[in-house]
Amino acid sequence: MPPQPLTDFSRLCVHTITTKPWSIEEATDRYAAAGVKGITVWRQWLDGRDIAKAGESLRAAGIEIVSLCRGGFFPATDAAARQRAIDDNLKAIDEAEALDAPLIVLVCGADPGQPLAESRQQIVDGIGAVLDRAGQAGVKLAIEPLHPMYADTRSAVNTLRQANEMCEQLDSPLVGVAVDVYHLWWDPDLQSEIQRSGRADRIFAFHVCDWRSPTEDLLNDRGLMGEGCINVPQIRGWVEENGFNGFIEVEIFSNRYWAMDQGEFLEKIKRAYSEKT
Amino acid sequence: MPPQPLTDFSRLCVHTITTKPWSIEEATDRYAAAGVKGITVWRQWLDGRDIAKAGESLRAAGIEIVSLCRGGFFPATDAAARQRAIDDNLKAIDEAEALDAPLIVLVCGADPGQPLAESRQQIVDGIGAVLDRAGQAGVKLAIEPLHPMYADTRSAVNTLRQANEMCEQLDSPLVGVAVDVYHLWWDPDLQSEIQRSGRADRIFAFHVCDWRSPTEDLLNDRGLMGEGCINVPQIRGWVEENGFNGFIEVEIFSNRYWAMDQGEFLEKIKRAYSEKT
Repeated sequence: MPPQPLTDFSRLCVHTITTKPWSIEEATDRYAAAGVKGITVWRQWLDGRDIAKAGESLRAAGIEIVSLCRGGFFPATDAAARQRAIDDNLKAIDEAEALDAPLIVLVCGADPGQPLAESRQQIVDGIGAVLDRAGQAGVKLAIEPLHPMYADTRSAVNTLRQANEMCEQLDSPLVGVAVDVYHLWWDPDLQSEIQRSGRADRIFAFHVCDWRSPTEDLLNDRGLMGEGCINVPQIRGWVEENGFNGFIEVEIFSNRYWAMDQGEFLEKIKRAYSEKT
Repeated sequence: MPPQPLTDFSRLCVHTITTKPWSIEEATDRYAAAGVKGITVWRQWLDGRDIAKAGESLRAAGIEIVSLCRGGFFPATDAAARQRAIDDNLKAIDEAEALDAPLIVLVCGADPGQPLAESRQQIVDGIGAVLDRAGQAGVKLAIEPLHPMYADTRSAVNTLRQANEMCEQLDSPLVGVAVDVYHLWWDPDLQSEIQRSGRADRIFAFHVCDWRSPTEDLLNDRGLMGEGCINVPQIRGWVEENGFNGFIEVEIFSNRYWAMDQGEFLEKIKRAYSEKT
């Protein structure tokens, strides 16, 4: 069953990294002017800013803060580095609290110098180590499985099944998943694992873009929805059938789009959101 | 349990594409001189050659033909293109018969214009359509699951589990799997699925190289064994514990290595094979 058409922008969220050339102040003004109703703030955008004030400016402009991106990167071969990662995640929780962001997206990390199974255990341990503080701050954490092509350094969590299993192991209402079509579209178990996430009320975020064919760069060649081979509406249907009705987050890393006028790019995003999502 | 050390080159096989600058004639001479005992011949290397004679020359040089690479590419949105793919696979079987190669590796294909599930069904149908002819020719077929980053155009079969399921569906002693560490290393189910392949005597081929970190190109930046983050000996141990004792095939696509002296590269391959495989 196809999902309901998106007839307005009330659920459109854009990641600050999608419009990378814009500062947080420019993004605030330009998103508001364009009618974008949600934002996911990447932490670098807050460098040198009064974080609470940045949050106030966004809300004053009518923009809801969907999440702070990104925590994670827990695995490391030595214990001191793992502790530094935990400290950095505690800092991210402080930042989310200051911003009044309800959610942190976790790019969980991996260390090519050790087996994936160890990295996976360190991710569970790392999340466990910050859960109490997340609860105090009222901040949820979303495990985002990343495409297997990032298993060397970015994330040892590469399928939604793994993310679901970690959530079950951690067994906390604070821990859920972020479903990103770019990372998961190829997985034959995607629909059933979305159902599993949904049954446990764990679909905390939904990220969209597209897989260009051919893809020319491992990191920065994502496409607008409709520009590639991912059936984005089908996957949106699956998350919505399973209880998700939150923001639809446009997260595009693209050297191509970053090089163009960002105002024009934002109009393209709105069109792709309305017609191809 | 670590696998037995590789103390000689009796199981070393090199793919002609690994030493891409060399023709089949050069590869025959140079592999023989270097003591490489096996070869997997890519079909392009036979263009314009008398195929039976190329096979004789290889055997006369003491080199065993491990497989012909590659068949597959079955999916397409229109029926005529699917029939052309089947015809091309029949031609590949003719070539394998002329070369006296016992096995064809299948890069199964995908079409970004249709759902992966349809491509997957067309792969099963396509293999089914050539099975009788493969049986007459005495040629086996290995389904090679490819990394999910190739799911748009190269293969809709992206995990060993999927390949095993297809083998079970086709249920023929002619159809098995090729386990390539580059495509499968990230999969948390890899060991159990290798066991499943082994129980059914379906591990027809084992391909090695490494995942460089960072990887700079989606296709042509593979590393020598030991140069990346894949635990190649562990995976070799898994296939050998499950009944595989055939050639270990070095299949490296690398702009970096293709640009160097191929004789020096072949020595590097032998060292990586002896010490890091």
